[in-house]
Amino acid sequence: MNDERLEKQLRFALEIDKEKNVFRQTHLSGHGRKENDAEHAWHMAIMAYLLREYANEEVDITRVMLMCLIHDLVEIDAGDTYAYDEEGLKTQKAREEAAKERIFSILPEDQKAELTALFDEFEAYETPESRFAHSLDNLQPLLLNNSNEGGDWKEHGVSAAHVYGRQRKTRLGSERLFEVTDEIIKENIRRGNLPE
Amino acid sequence: MNDERLEKQLRFALEIDKEKNVFRQTHLSGHGRKENDAEHAWHMAIMAYLLREYANEEVDITRVMLMCLIHDLVEIDAGDTYAYDEEGLKTQKAREEAAKERIFSILPEDQKAELTALFDEFEAYETPESRFAHSLDNLQPLLLNNSNEGGDWKEHGVSAAHVYGRQRKTRLGSERLFEVTDEIIKENIRRGNLPE
Repeated sequence: MNDERLEKQLRFALEIDKEKNVFRQTHLSGHGRKENDAEHAWHMAIMAYLLREYANEEVDITRVMLMCLIHDLVEIDAGDTYAYDEEGLKTQKAREEAAKERIFSILPEDQKAELTALFDEFEAYETPESRFAHSLDNLQPLLLNNSNEGGDWKEHGVSAAHVYGRQRKTRLGSERLFEVTDEIIKENIRRGNLPE
Repeated sequence: MNDERLEKQLRFALEIDKEKNVFRQTHLSGHGRKENDAEHAWHMAIMAYLLREYANEEVDITRVMLMCLIHDLVEIDAGDTYAYDEEGLKTQKAREEAAKERIFSILPEDQKAELTALFDEFEAYETPESRFAHSLDNLQPLLLNNSNEGGDWKEHGVSAAHVYGRQRKTRLGSERLFEVTDEIIKENIRRGNLPE
């Protein structure tokens, strides 16, 4: 091809195909199979766009969508760490840092720097964009799990306190989406899907 | 919830989860399983962003990414029509129009209108954004199929003329990505993966 830049970009495009094989603990609606990271990211990005009016602060929606799309690429190497897996969470950071370096290094330098910065921004929870992207990262699996009568929580013996522990940060990105989250959690406690 | 707008938005978010069950004829790299529409859309959107420098005309990348993300939602009802399925292609338009009406009507009116317009724009091939989005719609499965030694073409008895028939429109969105396409096709003819 004799075009090093484009070759790198296409090699990266092929590499990230592997994200479709990283499966999460969340099941698809209709009591479906487990969801993978690429599907989750796609779903989050569309939800981010359609729900952007509920972000606490004004956000650059393109950056939010990009964060949603790329935030799990490191799991190609590091695997998915379930939100309530205490042991896995201890080593998650180191595994993901190594993965980030390997995977983004496939890109040309400028795009490696850009995607690395975007990934770090997402992780740092400090900008309006990253906070809102995290709200979607929380809300998307909650919607699916709620549609499945809390099957994912039951399977892992998760309690309402655990769920609130994770979901409380939704509020940082969107007060309104946290109100919805709170309603969903309370409803699932009432239905007996989630022990208090 | 007592908020009709947000209820509609969340109902739509749950509805589109079904796109993850619409499988395509393309197989994942590494001779993997068939790919589904949500994964394909996710992949296209990231590729669109990273390859935007190759668009023939300047594009609003947010609109391109959105088109990539939503362009197959109608297939929730209409199913995937393989690019080389002559019979299916005859009824595709009518099936997709009905699906578009049903699915986008779940949204609040303004967002229904916005997504319908975006979908129609993609289909019409008239704007720089839609042409570039189509280039990605063509290139993404080509990359995967190329990585699998043309397995998808072999399975369906597709010839180089068929592939060129579909891929020539990539040129409308990106001359440079069409050059890559052309190289990939020629290489697969040489390797015996694609009969001339």
